[in-house]
Amino acid sequence: MKYEINKNAKILIVGLGLIGGSYAQALSDQGFDVGAIDKDAESIAYAKENGIISHGMCEPKADYVKTFDLMIFCLYPHDVVDWIEKNQHILKPNALLTDVTGVKSSIVYKIQNTLRTDVEFIGAHPMAGRELSGVRNAKKDIFYGANYIVTPTQKNTPDAIAACKKLGELLGFAHISELSPEAHDEMIGFLSQLAHCIAITLMTCRDCESLALYTGDSFRDLTRIARINDCLWSELFLLNQEELLRQMDLFADQFSRLRKSLADGDIGAMRELMRLSSQRREYFDKIKQKN
Amino acid sequence: MKYEINKNAKILIVGLGLIGGSYAQALSDQGFDVGAIDKDAESIAYAKENGIISHGMCEPKADYVKTFDLMIFCLYPHDVVDWIEKNQHILKPNALLTDVTGVKSSIVYKIQNTLRTDVEFIGAHPMAGRELSGVRNAKKDIFYGANYIVTPTQKNTPDAIAACKKLGELLGFAHISELSPEAHDEMIGFLSQLAHCIAITLMTCRDCESLALYTGDSFRDLTRIARINDCLWSELFLLNQEELLRQMDLFADQFSRLRKSLADGDIGAMRELMRLSSQRREYFDKIKQKN
Repeated sequence: MKYEINKNAKILIVGLGLIGGSYAQALSDQGFDVGAIDKDAESIAYAKENGIISHGMCEPKADYVKTFDLMIFCLYPHDVVDWIEKNQHILKPNALLTDVTGVKSSIVYKIQNTLRTDVEFIGAHPMAGRELSGVRNAKKDIFYGANYIVTPTQKNTPDAIAACKKLGELLGFAHISELSPEAHDEMIGFLSQLAHCIAITLMTCRDCESLALYTGDSFRDLTRIARINDCLWSELFLLNQEELLRQMDLFADQFSRLRKSLADGDIGAMRELMRLSSQRREYFDKIKQKN
Repeated sequence: MKYEINKNAKILIVGLGLIGGSYAQALSDQGFDVGAIDKDAESIAYAKENGIISHGMCEPKADYVKTFDLMIFCLYPHDVVDWIEKNQHILKPNALLTDVTGVKSSIVYKIQNTLRTDVEFIGAHPMAGRELSGVRNAKKDIFYGANYIVTPTQKNTPDAIAACKKLGELLGFAHISELSPEAHDEMIGFLSQLAHCIAITLMTCRDCESLALYTGDSFRDLTRIARINDCLWSELFLLNQEELLRQMDLFADQFSRLRKSLADGDIGAMRELMRLSSQRREYFDKIKQKN
């Protein structure tokens, strides 16, 4: 297999934050030779001291970069595109490149269409995280029980898809699946980005600080994700703009349907929505128990 | 004090479900003489066998009802109004009446305006519950750490307000506060009912069962309350119709503001909303830690 991740594979993490650091830790602990590139010298120093990586540097130097068989990009989406565009001439021939970005269509094709033909990029999305950031908060166990989605295109080889899935297994993900970049973005637009839009809206639609004392679990659960990295998430939203707008419209239409049934005093329509909602949510709980 | 809840006070629970049963258990355990009325003979029998109540019956008989100093109505909102209207002639003079209903303006005034002048009704809302129902699931510790809100009007006496707060203390609530029925309904319209509308909308706005496998914590948290008792909640929504419509409109307006900033590619406006949202949510977390 061209891209087999065997014990001799040298792995480079580009961007040593929470996710990059957690990947590095998980892979180092399994005996891989893991290096990192990060602009922040302190992050590199901390990771070396704590056995998260074996070596690393702040800027991509050709002699260093060309030693790696597998490169994992853990940067903001546009930085992944820029980095690869700028540095692809120093990659090792036959290197496999992957990422951890939360949007796919808008970056995967752009990278694949301009990439050298002797290396391969395959998108992946580890659906895991913490409400903290930075390599100091890295924890390899954030992947246990979580979903890992590989998003291959026509340009990807079966070998690269298999290697990328293997990486998900090595990291300890519970469910590894395959979706097209478009299907991924639709799914993530609904399940994650729309959910964040709702939480942001709830926290900003009125002055609610005076209500903090009365807040019950329902409201707390709905707004937990309202603490958000505005720099990263505004970029993720914009890079999935069309799909997210479509999901927001689906939600808004149904919300006004519920509003109308309340305004009309149509108790039958309200109860029907509540029963459908209960039945679907129960199905979600069952799926979780099975897994 | 006219309505002092002393050790000799006889307490009647009307409606022995999850909340009524939990009240009964908490009060019996503290040595009070607690009785109950519930249409379901099996609930009464179960509660007697398990020491939750000392006695009870299925229909309100005058000889029984007129022995109670404190009556707690744990019925659906319209059933509280109906029960009191129909049976007020058999109440003990100087009895204190309270309830556990999740809406206030629409029932408190109706009851107080038609009530005998030698008894007093004061509204209260224990903000606690479980996703289960019935006396078999009653647990007195569901009140620990929770909010208890007393909603007095001009018709209530200081004695009754004090006694109702005392009841909240006896039950073990962490925060006992006072709000007008109107302020209560506005608060609950936003923090609880709107949250339920959002969860229902999320689960019904599109066929999402195929996405169950990819669901992360965000979506699960937002839709936990989408499993809902359609009979009770459609009634609660309708009884707070005007206020809930107002809160739904506040939310929908802000949601379209966020949508517009995304459609316009206005990254500055999006980031500003995200920063405000993060800052307010952080304040909520601080308030929780303090308590």
